[in-house]
Amino acid sequence: SIVGIGPGQHSWRTPEASALISEAEELVGYGLYIDILGPLAIGKKRSDFPLGGEEARCRYALEEAGKGKNVALICSGDAGIYAMGALVFELLDRNENEMGVSDAAKRIEVQCTPGVSALQGAAARAGAPLGHDFCTISLSDLLTPREDIIRRLHAAAEGDFVIAFYNPVSKTRRTLLAEAREILLKYRPNDTPVMLASSLGRPEEEVRYRRLDELEVDEVDMLTVVLIGSSNSRLANLGEGARMFTPRGYARKIDGDLS
Amino acid sequence: SIVGIGPGQHSWRTPEASALISEAEELVGYGLYIDILGPLAIGKKRSDFPLGGEEARCRYALEEAGKGKNVALICSGDAGIYAMGALVFELLDRNENEMGVSDAAKRIEVQCTPGVSALQGAAARAGAPLGHDFCTISLSDLLTPREDIIRRLHAAAEGDFVIAFYNPVSKTRRTLLAEAREILLKYRPNDTPVMLASSLGRPEEEVRYRRLDELEVDEVDMLTVVLIGSSNSRLANLGEGARMFTPRGYARKIDGDLS
Repeated sequence: SIVGIGPGQHSWRTPEASALISEAEELVGYGLYIDILGPLAIGKKRSDFPLGGEEARCRYALEEAGKGKNVALICSGDAGIYAMGALVFELLDRNENEMGVSDAAKRIEVQCTPGVSALQGAAARAGAPLGHDFCTISLSDLLTPREDIIRRLHAAAEGDFVIAFYNPVSKTRRTLLAEAREILLKYRPNDTPVMLASSLGRPEEEVRYRRLDELEVDEVDMLTVVLIGSSNSRLANLGEGARMFTPRGYARKIDGDLS
Repeated sequence: SIVGIGPGQHSWRTPEASALISEAEELVGYGLYIDILGPLAIGKKRSDFPLGGEEARCRYALEEAGKGKNVALICSGDAGIYAMGALVFELLDRNENEMGVSDAAKRIEVQCTPGVSALQGAAARAGAPLGHDFCTISLSDLLTPREDIIRRLHAAAEGDFVIAFYNPVSKTRRTLLAEAREILLKYRPNDTPVMLASSLGRPEEEVRYRRLDELEVDEVDMLTVVLIGSSNSRLANLGEGARMFTPRGYARKIDGDLS
């Protein structure tokens, strides 16, 4: 099975995810994600792979499953969103002479289970910034050509989507987020609200709001979710603090412009 | 609290959502969503509102909470994604003379909890179609001007995003989905895979795949999730059946084009 365990806190992990982990004989994944499972992981064989070892991790899980083992490939967030899901199917779809997996691995049954993605955890903390049409864009140019990312940024800006950035920066790449800010500022107001959410669901969780023109790349690290409002998104100062939301057009209805 | 209960099956409802429902004295929502809760709803006051009664539903929940009650506003999927979340904050952000809610209601503490959205449930059934950058677009022109939707469709096509359509059709509106198909066909191959998923997580669940040029509006109803692949999305015929996925560029790495 391919299991998304959510952004970090146990109470965001679905019962289906927990059940699939319980049933598995072996857990495969980045070590930190398996650590988060706590008691659920006890007594199971575990195979930790480092960050960056994605292909090796998926191949290993598929080949072990091909031997008849019940293997759970553990991903954070939703396993199908910027996680191992797509790579598993890419390897299954290739023949052995095209660097695919063995025939035994090809015959396994794969169960995918959805999970709460980090952007949803962040959005819930903010209020409802994803309340209208949104998109997600990975700013990692490791696997996607840089020109494709730039083209996508322009398209997202033209469409006035709320945007969630995945991989906003890495240790060696810090320029694309600043470039994204400059592109978006050509289309959206300077005071468009931006949410930065770090360590979601963990004790050190931190949420900050910024104006788009004051978004500083140095405030963003690899573990930060960056949510950029559309031109309709608003920051409300309520009694309990700031909340960000993107109205869906009910305003026209409330104000009587719509019947 | 504003609670997203997932697309339908209990095993996709997070423990946090279940806990918030347990703690609530009163449940407010569309009746079907409260019915799905089964035993969790027993013994609680429930206030059902019809589809279309969104504003009344949110006002009622906020005012009851303003009286000191623990109220849970029940939404399907993720409460922050095309659900009641944004409307609640819009009402809280308005003054009483702007059709906002009462001062008592304004002082309540709102807790939002994320949930598995229908598009994630559909994606998990397909394989990993959301494996790379994606967007969601509502095709309902009830609250969003039609020209904004068309502009967004063009932007999503130009950006080559995987697209999830929300509200693909309604009883009275069946033309926008066909229009969307024609727009996308100008940018994407005719054989771009499309997934249609109905009644997710329920016994009558049905999943179908179509080519973009063969997408028939008559096959889609109000309860169908429509996922349109990007130009990179693929349909793989594996032993266990068809699986749709969107690779993230690992191909270049696997094939040795990247180090």
